Amino acid sequence: MTLHELVAQIKKKQSFLCVGLDTDLSKIPAHLLETEDPIFEFNKAIIDATKEFCVAYKPNTAFYECYGPKGWESLKKTIDYIPKDCLTIADAKRGDIGNTSTYYAKTFFEYLNCDAVTVAPYMGEDSITPFLAFENKWVILLALTSNKGALDFQLLKDENNEELYKKVLRKSSQWGTQNNLMYVVGATRAEEIAEVRAIVPNHFFLVPGIGAQGGSLEDVVQFGWNENCGLLVNSSRGIIYASTGKDFAEKAKNEAQKIQQEMAQILLQKSFI
Amino acid sequence: MTLHELVAQIKKKQSFLCVGLDTDLSKIPAHLLETEDPIFEFNKAIIDATKEFCVAYKPNTAFYECYGPKGWESLKKTIDYIPKDCLTIADAKRGDIGNTSTYYAKTFFEYLNCDAVTVAPYMGEDSITPFLAFENKWVILLALTSNKGALDFQLLKDENNEELYKKVLRKSSQWGTQNNLMYVVGATRAEEIAEVRAIVPNHFFLVPGIGAQGGSLEDVVQFGWNENCGLLVNSSRGIIYASTGKDFAEKAKNEAQKIQQEMAQILLQKSFI
Repeated sequence: MTLHELVAQIKKKQSFLCVGLDTDLSKIPAHLLETEDPIFEFNKAIIDATKEFCVAYKPNTAFYECYGPKGWESLKKTIDYIPKDCLTIADAKRGDIGNTSTYYAKTFFEYLNCDAVTVAPYMGEDSITPFLAFENKWVILLALTSNKGALDFQLLKDENNEELYKKVLRKSSQWGTQNNLMYVVGATRAEEIAEVRAIVPNHFFLVPGIGAQGGSLEDVVQFGWNENCGLLVNSSRGIIYASTGKDFAEKAKNEAQKIQQEMAQILLQKSFI
Repeated sequence: MTLHELVAQIKKKQSFLCVGLDTDLSKIPAHLLETEDPIFEFNKAIIDATKEFCVAYKPNTAFYECYGPKGWESLKKTIDYIPKDCLTIADAKRGDIGNTSTYYAKTFFEYLNCDAVTVAPYMGEDSITPFLAFENKWVILLALTSNKGALDFQLLKDENNEELYKKVLRKSSQWGTQNNLMYVVGATRAEEIAEVRAIVPNHFFLVPGIGAQGGSLEDVVQFGWNENCGLLVNSSRGIIYASTGKDFAEKAKNEAQKIQQEMAQILLQKSFI
């Protein structure tokens, strides 16, 4: 999916919502556990219920690979099932030396045919550029994450009093462009989103941390908006586990719709639609 | 595997060699491609040929997951086949927020039953501690990697003129102990190994970068040795692709034995055996 196509979807669906498919067998409705592939059955119902209200889906690979080959089958079936007008993001946080990163890129961009994969920056340029070599595919690089551990290294200051995450932004934005590189920027650090936006004005952000983790949509928009919208705001638990009963898909739909309506208001206020 | 057991294996085998199973279908002997599971057949032959000379095996997950469920089956069969007296390291470079890291830990420590997994530090404490909660299992945290990209972020200096990788060492060594935490320290930066050793005197290092990447065993020992040996030196391509013909296992054996003999000399000189 190209930048142009993504922006067109945001306008069409009046939404910049990403639904996180962190599908956990211990949290999904009990009646699904009797099916042959409970993870896929759950995801299928969630996708059917929410696809009208979101522009992206983000399965987190940890929740699939812990079941071995069967989990990878559920992941592949899920990604194949996601409508082609939605951006598919493998939240995998990979990254290794060049030759190895090429194999990870093949896994996510060729075998699974995702549009995007999240990548960790610690190993530097040659761990990231192999992913950028695939046409119409996206790297979503960890910059400033939503968890407490972000404080440990990402916010360390260098000799010029600049935090590590800003160095990651400055350097990596020379390796990719706004057409193949996005950043993970946590909603829990709203004021720092403005600092990220100042360094990379044109790139999209994938923003986790709304809802369960405490971030606010208003703050994210206030500090992170750009002329392309520039935001994909993720919600996982708040949508997919809105109910643990047989009405889980309906409740997920309601939650997704609620966020979409809030986003439509914002897009109108911004004269984006 | 405990620290005590690992040290006992090093003494028994007179070796601190780790064989990297970066098994690439485009590089393995052509006659194996006709078998049902070429990756496993290759690994099986390599393990049979080298197990006498090494104390650890390190499959890199990228080379397996690019084949989807079938690749994960090859990985599981490979790990099950590795003799129990060898440390099994999943070179996976995972790391995510706490709940998600727990699922990765379950994948590698429970489903695959590896002894150790490599983890990337960028997301901080709560991305690493879930892996440390498993008894007799190891986190091998990226500190100073062997690739060129290590310069981009790992060697950035903070306001006290100290590099990021040193901060990673100082902080993370408070989260784990020498009994459950090792570090990846590349052989290509020999003099910096001494600086790593000064900060974490008691932890084991997993050292990639010998051979194809240009690092030297003598330098690694000179700068990285501790009273437990403290080193697992990895070789992948130099051993497993020593020949691409039908004699690949025999040639791999020769290469592994050559390194083991060099290591035995070192262990004797150090009066470790």
